[in-house]
Amino acid sequence: MKNYRLIIEYDGSGYHGWQFQKNALSIQEVIEGVLFQIMRKRVRLNSSGRTDAGVHAVNQVVNFKTDVEIKTNRLLKGLNGLLPDDIVIKQVDEAPDDFDARRSAKSKVYRYVILNSKTPSALERFRCWHVRDPLDLDVMKKGAEIITGEHDFSSFRASGCSAKDAVREILRTSFTVKENGFIIFEIEGRAFLRHMVRNITGTLVDLGLGKISLAEFKSVIDARDRTRGGVAAPARGLFLVEVKY
Amino acid sequence: MKNYRLIIEYDGSGYHGWQFQKNALSIQEVIEGVLFQIMRKRVRLNSSGRTDAGVHAVNQVVNFKTDVEIKTNRLLKGLNGLLPDDIVIKQVDEAPDDFDARRSAKSKVYRYVILNSKTPSALERFRCWHVRDPLDLDVMKKGAEIITGEHDFSSFRASGCSAKDAVREILRTSFTVKENGFIIFEIEGRAFLRHMVRNITGTLVDLGLGKISLAEFKSVIDARDRTRGGVAAPARGLFLVEVKY
Repeated sequence: MKNYRLIIEYDGSGYHGWQFQKNALSIQEVIEGVLFQIMRKRVRLNSSGRTDAGVHAVNQVVNFKTDVEIKTNRLLKGLNGLLPDDIVIKQVDEAPDDFDARRSAKSKVYRYVILNSKTPSALERFRCWHVRDPLDLDVMKKGAEIITGEHDFSSFRASGCSAKDAVREILRTSFTVKENGFIIFEIEGRAFLRHMVRNITGTLVDLGLGKISLAEFKSVIDARDRTRGGVAAPARGLFLVEVKY
Repeated sequence: MKNYRLIIEYDGSGYHGWQFQKNALSIQEVIEGVLFQIMRKRVRLNSSGRTDAGVHAVNQVVNFKTDVEIKTNRLLKGLNGLLPDDIVIKQVDEAPDDFDARRSAKSKVYRYVILNSKTPSALERFRCWHVRDPLDLDVMKKGAEIITGEHDFSSFRASGCSAKDAVREILRTSFTVKENGFIIFEIEGRAFLRHMVRNITGTLVDLGLGKISLAEFKSVIDARDRTRGGVAAPARGLFLVEVKY
């Protein structure tokens, strides 16, 4: 058996997320379909984790096992020749037998792009969240510090989240201010609950807009109650940028 | 009479360029249509210059004169409320009577985005030119130095270009290498011929790929013959970033 590893970039705008679903087009389904065309055998892709509908990936990592032997370079060219333009395979290689894109992952880095300006962006409209009123970045940084480390993130999980417990560890967060009002929020963690990054970002924006105080932000976490968290930030601003092994 | 000035960002992907045309949708036509809805009077937009089909603008500058008085803030909100998402008015103000977006312009800055990597980009597919083979940036910089200053750019004008003479002055060029293989080429000039930036970029890429030598690049310019220039770089990688007054 061969264990192939793929690194994938995708524009999530046109898909109902990574994960295969019965009645909606997923990125997984499209890639598995093209792999079947190339290899004439069905495979099941094992990703580092699902991404929601509309969420993008710069470097999603996936593996699959098969008894079909194919040169990695041929597989790379074959996949990119047949895939639509909004999904690109950046790298194909043979992984060790025990490599598992999900279980072997040590941490994941997500990026959330906020555009904080009076007017939205025509060019980046599918790749950011436009927040019109001015954000207080200093208080947002303090909020991000509070969530760093190990916490029960029940207040930031989606209602449909199936994880047994909600304790997760955030390793690192950062805010970077770019040209023209763009703010990049990065968050690295060992694992995330469903909608967790979008819920954290939405609540940090509430904090930055002065809708809640830092004390209230802390009480939201302490409440361990998903009805207390802010509105989820829109999917289009979120990117899975790196999976570390 | 009032003289209103607009600063406009647009994603050119969905339009047949800036300039009004009979049988194809232009950015000018869309904005003039919305201005008519707001002001109930026809106006004609005067831009710093046209952009080709598929070319983007970060800051296109436009003015129009009218006897309709409207608060600039109301005009900004009205326009952005009615325009499609791929056209955004970033600023509206009242300009001096003698301000003319085209004639008053001192120089224009264009940006061309090249992605030099083995695989294309899913996320930036409408905003760059993917060049697979490795580019020699040093020789491209030397080529860009050659075209800096005043030259007859006949070899880099489009066949349909209606300008009387082809002498233009390039004030500045630069190359910046970004993450993941992206190369940003910037060029500032007092004025440009039709397709000039795309023809220059295409010929510089021929140089970077080793298809032509630096001596041949120089001879292309000296030939003053548009059949000698390289293939035009695709419109989707080109952005009008600034007009200086």
